[in-house]
Amino acid sequence: MTTKTVAELLSQDVTLQDVTVKGWVRTFRANRFIALNDGSTINNIQCVVDFENFDEALLKRVTTGAAVHVTGELVESQGRGQSVEIVVKSLEILGDSDPETYPIQPKKHSFEFLRENAHLRTRTNTFSAVMRLRSSLSFAIHKYFNDNGFYYMHTPIVTGSDAEGAGEMFRVSNIDPKNPPLTESGEIDYKEDFFGKETNLTVSGQLEAETYAMSLGKVYTFGPTFRAENSNTSRHLAEFWMIEPEVAFMDLAGNMDLAEDFMKSVLGYVLDKNKEDLEFLEKRLLDEEKTKPQAERSAMSLIEKIKFVVDNNFKRVSYTEAIDILRNSKPNKKKKFNYIIEEWGADLQSEHERYLVEKHFKCPVILFDYPANIKAFYMRLNEDGKTVRAMDILFPGIGEMVGGSQREERLDVLKEKMAALNIPEEELWWYLDLRKYGTAVHSGFGLGFERLVMFATGMGNIRDVIPYPRTPQNAEF
Amino acid sequence: MTTKTVAELLSQDVTLQDVTVKGWVRTFRANRFIALNDGSTINNIQCVVDFENFDEALLKRVTTGAAVHVTGELVESQGRGQSVEIVVKSLEILGDSDPETYPIQPKKHSFEFLRENAHLRTRTNTFSAVMRLRSSLSFAIHKYFNDNGFYYMHTPIVTGSDAEGAGEMFRVSNIDPKNPPLTESGEIDYKEDFFGKETNLTVSGQLEAETYAMSLGKVYTFGPTFRAENSNTSRHLAEFWMIEPEVAFMDLAGNMDLAEDFMKSVLGYVLDKNKEDLEFLEKRLLDEEKTKPQAERSAMSLIEKIKFVVDNNFKRVSYTEAIDILRNSKPNKKKKFNYIIEEWGADLQSEHERYLVEKHFKCPVILFDYPANIKAFYMRLNEDGKTVRAMDILFPGIGEMVGGSQREERLDVLKEKMAALNIPEEELWWYLDLRKYGTAVHSGFGLGFERLVMFATGMGNIRDVIPYPRTPQNAEF
Repeated sequence: MTTKTVAELLSQDVTLQDVTVKGWVRTFRANRFIALNDGSTINNIQCVVDFENFDEALLKRVTTGAAVHVTGELVESQGRGQSVEIVVKSLEILGDSDPETYPIQPKKHSFEFLRENAHLRTRTNTFSAVMRLRSSLSFAIHKYFNDNGFYYMHTPIVTGSDAEGAGEMFRVSNIDPKNPPLTESGEIDYKEDFFGKETNLTVSGQLEAETYAMSLGKVYTFGPTFRAENSNTSRHLAEFWMIEPEVAFMDLAGNMDLAEDFMKSVLGYVLDKNKEDLEFLEKRLLDEEKTKPQAERSAMSLIEKIKFVVDNNFKRVSYTEAIDILRNSKPNKKKKFNYIIEEWGADLQSEHERYLVEKHFKCPVILFDYPANIKAFYMRLNEDGKTVRAMDILFPGIGEMVGGSQREERLDVLKEKMAALNIPEEELWWYLDLRKYGTAVHSGFGLGFERLVMFATGMGNIRDVIPYPRTPQNAEF
Repeated sequence: MTTKTVAELLSQDVTLQDVTVKGWVRTFRANRFIALNDGSTINNIQCVVDFENFDEALLKRVTTGAAVHVTGELVESQGRGQSVEIVVKSLEILGDSDPETYPIQPKKHSFEFLRENAHLRTRTNTFSAVMRLRSSLSFAIHKYFNDNGFYYMHTPIVTGSDAEGAGEMFRVSNIDPKNPPLTESGEIDYKEDFFGKETNLTVSGQLEAETYAMSLGKVYTFGPTFRAENSNTSRHLAEFWMIEPEVAFMDLAGNMDLAEDFMKSVLGYVLDKNKEDLEFLEKRLLDEEKTKPQAERSAMSLIEKIKFVVDNNFKRVSYTEAIDILRNSKPNKKKKFNYIIEEWGADLQSEHERYLVEKHFKCPVILFDYPANIKAFYMRLNEDGKTVRAMDILFPGIGEMVGGSQREERLDVLKEKMAALNIPEEELWWYLDLRKYGTAVHSGFGLGFERLVMFATGMGNIRDVIPYPRTPQNAEF
């Protein structure tokens, strides 16, 4: 008799068979009903104990969190809420869990408390559902790209190039921090460091991904990226995972098509595969929103929001059109925005993005053709000389989900841009080579994975969608 | 007429249709035959130009590495080596490639030279095949675990715990390296650093993976890991990718079954999906081996070696048996080993592993039940009190491919082990909690991904199976 998972047992329609299962006790009710979970599903299997046939001392050890090995007969359940249950024949305690000290009691814990016990928080329904969804989304991403002829590429984590320009970086080093080697002029001598130069943690794999797109055609990265920014918000992590596809011979319109198709595909995948987890999280979100004033509650439930994205076209709007809409909007005229939009060229704040997405269009929006001077050096300059082929995808409740662009493929224009921003050509000689030898139109985008997980789970704090969040003053576990 | 990839065109059986394709020129022969590649396959599509109908200046720009856009008619090929070809109607140069300076000429380049041009090396057959295989193996790994009920888990890259003990670590910091904040006693004050403590790059996600196995049941990691070891060999990288499954309620025998099934599955996947790349790499390896003395050549070709692993059981041998075999072996008796095996307890060197795998058993070997004192603190002590439930899988030509163990699940034994090794309990309070609350037998292993890619591609240097290798004194690109 092989051990089965709870998910396997609950999907059985052959009852009256002997089964064996191992898992952790969620609750033990009336000295009779063990709710057993093993992580394979959000559902517990009910194990029914006839207490007269078991040693009292043994039953006392059936406490929340204890690991047990149950053998018995699978029967049709008499109670509500489950189709089958196990009539227990033998019960073995594999590992006790002292109810006096076990942190995860069968009651509602605050997310703050669970963050401090992040090593145990996946023993709750909420966090097990979130992490199963995170895993499922990851697989959906790999599957989408694999099915569509993309190659997965591992771009370097430790980088010697500081020209990526996406934000503050962490230094990676193994020189003696107390007595670092110095040059004659008194600077740190990084020639003596492990890599023979100053190195940092990557902020993006894009530039390296471009090198592979320009030979393998369609590639993507999915790896950790880092920002040493002191932002203690519910939207920022110092360490997060990013997905960056990059495609040769694809222009900005193709890039928008790809991003939209990709988002719909991966969200459609979890709608299909993670129904029970989503239903649980939808209910959790509903309960959470009941504590908020009516005006702040979502018009749609979690699953409705995901379906809405899967089923509707994203609205494509140029930056110039967006500025017009915002300039003429009520909150702008009534000076309700913190930053009043006066002229073309203004950088959009999240209040403006939220207005466009949540009030004006009421659907995901792709903004494109941004002013060149508020965007990165590598973006393709338009023929107007003042805008670049950039795009951002904005999601309701989340804000920017995707940022991408067509890349500047013309050597002379790229060099001018770099010179204007004081990016030394020696730093990026290899990046320039792509424009010297067989250059072509190409495009790509970056998607912050945790933002996607937040959207798909309805969790409001980014620290609750990654196993062990790294934030200022926190690298526990 | 939508643009098709070369792979799509070569698999067409409808000829006499108009097609359009974009890619890079590999060669241009006799002012007539363009071999075009776009990375979608190792094969080129032949584009036939009737030079009398094209401008001479245009044809001069058809050089190796140039990006071109070809439109024409797909016809049955007259030449050997391909089923279809394109009779070119229009030809556009998207990006030139100066033949005087382009580094990737249509000739054999040394791997050393290509490492210096790693941003262009996937424009060669060898490296495009290697990186397609790397991508395919990655997908096979995700697919295997997903199909078998595992959850993918992203363990942290920046770690505040230095107790993992797998090797030298890189420090991650953003304090001022020249004027670091100091404590009263003159030590670096890491409280002032970004994370409020000393942090490093992870050497393994295992300990964190255990926390998730003990709630979600079956999990795996697949992420970058780091070693600050000054080893300039063809087998070591400072940054490499590792796969680490971890399973609750699984003992060492189950762990061996899982590892063997996993290896066979992912290698079987690429045998099926990457036939053409493997055939190319097999031929390359054969050519390389022709330059070696007969005795050093492999008895099997690349594909034969992979098939052998897929089709044959791994030999399971205890450390104690292995010591007996080695002690009585010819090279030991004749003192040919650098390290002569005298007694039980000796750590095995790669010469011994190679002997067992390549000379004695001639197949992959799983060694298990190693002496406790040569293995890590978290491995399950056997009842004999002197061996631990560890296992290593050794592959022909590669050596150690997998290292794993059943984990010590008993709180008292684990604490004793940690005390003996001076690992402070405060460092791993969360790891100890797993043994306090619902502990159970669990096991897992680690697989160095690049070792697997080396085995599957026949490449001899680990720097040639990762896009941008990080090694001592090298973090270019």
